Amino acid sequence: MEKVRDALAAVAFAETKLKKTNLFETERMFCDVYGLLPGQQQSGHVHAGSDKVYYVLSGSGVFDIAGEQRTVAAGHAVFAPAGDSHAVHNPGPDRLSLLVFMAPKP
Amino acid sequence: MEKVRDALAAVAFAETKLKKTNLFETERMFCDVYGLLPGQQQSGHVHAGSDKVYYVLSGSGVFDIAGEQRTVAAGHAVFAPAGDSHAVHNPGPDRLSLLVFMAPKP
Repeated sequence: MEKVRDALAAVAFAETKLKKTNLFETERMFCDVYGLLPGQQQSGHVHAGSDKVYYVLSGSGVFDIAGEQRTVAAGHAVFAPAGDSHAVHNPGPDRLSLLVFMAPKP
Repeated sequence: MEKVRDALAAVAFAETKLKKTNLFETERMFCDVYGLLPGQQQSGHVHAGSDKVYYVLSGSGVFDIAGEQRTVAAGHAVFAPAGDSHAVHNPGPDRLSLLVFMAPKP
């Protein structure tokens, strides 16, 4: 596994849905990048025993964390602790690129 | 705990040594930001059972991961898996700001 990655350069996009690309992974955690074209989303879901952090690399996303909606721009980090429902969508017009950490790996 | 944080705005610096500021924390993981003035460092160390990811928010750092030195600029992520010695220093001239994830919390 390459231990240094250009995060934004690793982000990929797909016309059909949000595209996930793994950067680093162990049995304890993973670190991915997500690419969301305008209109794409990650639907609301809950991890009972894992915490997630999103960091917005570029663009702007609308996050729903435990029912609270926040529009979050590049440079901000969003925390979805275990048990909190979380969702994100890209209202556009720009592409949305996210760095995502989850621990432990569900 | 505030669930949305402006990462770069949260970075603090101290004349004496690297400055750590926590963004998010549970019993499973933490997410910090580190501020390193030119010449400052985090000395080499090992976590036997925890993985760490650094993301360079601004500036440029020299990372040593398991004996391999790499100069890493803003926008790149660096992985220090459990058992790998890791260190970072800021050669300057700019301030170095890092987003740091560790799981599980040691």
